Amino acid sequence: MSSSAETNLTYDAFLGGKLHLWQPRQGYRAGVDPVLLAASVPAQPGQRVLELGCGVGAAILCLDARVGGLHLTGVEVQPELAALAARNGGDALEVVTADLSDLPVDLRQQQFDHVLANPPYFDRAASIRSADPAREAAHGEATPLAKWVRVAGKRLAPKGQAHFIHRVERLPDILTAMPADLGSVEVLPIAPRIGRMTELVIVRARKNGRAAFRLHPALIMHEGATHERDGISYVAAVRAVLRDGAALGF
Amino acid sequence: MSSSAETNLTYDAFLGGKLHLWQPRQGYRAGVDPVLLAASVPAQPGQRVLELGCGVGAAILCLDARVGGLHLTGVEVQPELAALAARNGGDALEVVTADLSDLPVDLRQQQFDHVLANPPYFDRAASIRSADPAREAAHGEATPLAKWVRVAGKRLAPKGQAHFIHRVERLPDILTAMPADLGSVEVLPIAPRIGRMTELVIVRARKNGRAAFRLHPALIMHEGATHERDGISYVAAVRAVLRDGAALGF
Repeated sequence: MSSSAETNLTYDAFLGGKLHLWQPRQGYRAGVDPVLLAASVPAQPGQRVLELGCGVGAAILCLDARVGGLHLTGVEVQPELAALAARNGGDALEVVTADLSDLPVDLRQQQFDHVLANPPYFDRAASIRSADPAREAAHGEATPLAKWVRVAGKRLAPKGQAHFIHRVERLPDILTAMPADLGSVEVLPIAPRIGRMTELVIVRARKNGRAAFRLHPALIMHEGATHERDGISYVAAVRAVLRDGAALGF
Repeated sequence: MSSSAETNLTYDAFLGGKLHLWQPRQGYRAGVDPVLLAASVPAQPGQRVLELGCGVGAAILCLDARVGGLHLTGVEVQPELAALAARNGGDALEVVTADLSDLPVDLRQQQFDHVLANPPYFDRAASIRSADPAREAAHGEATPLAKWVRVAGKRLAPKGQAHFIHRVERLPDILTAMPADLGSVEVLPIAPRIGRMTELVIVRARKNGRAAFRLHPALIMHEGATHERDGISYVAAVRAVLRDGAALGF
């Protein structure tokens, strides 16, 4: 990679420095959301994990940093991001550059214990096209959200679990898209402060699950009812996830 | 009504005695849920209100007790309950004895500013048949939940609002059943105590609404993290709804 290209990248610490990731300076940048997603996945060493739309690998590499000994596969349609994911993950992460609507045959023959995804938040119907193609692909809905859910379901082994994080606005779409063989659906609402509206949801579903739908108490991100001062005010459980790489049990 | 039939009834106070209702001693009995449902409906005097599956009229009569000056119509398929609804509502409530899948023509020609429903909680697929026919009709899913949602949507005037209360387990079914012309969907989770799983949801939708889906902070019913003593421990906002007939703003 040329040095001029290199200056378009940043090298950022996650999980209190347990993980560092190269990512583009411009466009979509991994923040808190993939870290929360990874923290919610109860993977065990030795299991096979697939991330759909892995970007530079933030979520799946956060998961590996916590659990260790996982077999990791990431699918990413944008070659630049896929290359960064490969660089970030090294030997630990197999990166497949592909559209999730058209996965390679050998991937379609594999099954995974966990599938996770942080699909793009942009709703094509409700907004306008971005000028930045990479940002557009991340935030524009080139692949319908329902497709993400169905592909996750197809790639899961029996009893395997899918986890998605998304804007709460899309929760009905995610629930509506659930195929019949994905069940035991659970939702963790995430709200910025106590008494405030949910902004994000983590949705968990189990292949062949038959338990009733469950709605958990909201995860509150920040202390206090209002933003009282600058600086970090995460509640202890969130701080443990973001700074210490703890699991987010629910 | 014969005196032997009369002994099969109870006469119960709601809203701290603002409302009294005759209801069957056996089978489904109105409790807190229809009161919470009624409290969530922001009706204004002069508006037209329809309750689907009104039973003895608990929800719609609680709403009228709070707002006043409403034009009330209740649909109930079970003649005994419809008769009690008529007795409870008097001149204020028009009761139509009908299956909501087969509403009379003159009702199908009317539109309402508000439609509310507390559909049966029983899931036919997940349980067994009740021996009590009235209980069965209230708790067995003779009419699919999706039908309740669609009929509510059809009977709403432009910009009118539908409100449903149901077990959280059925939230995905309600969201999946939303017809394209019902939007601006909002969900109020209801949990027994802080930190506990949601048990009930109130779902609000607006005819022709186009706002994004919203998930409100949970309404917590009881003080404290655990049941520490017998007796009532409702939080103040819930006590105001149940005892004073206050609105449940969300």
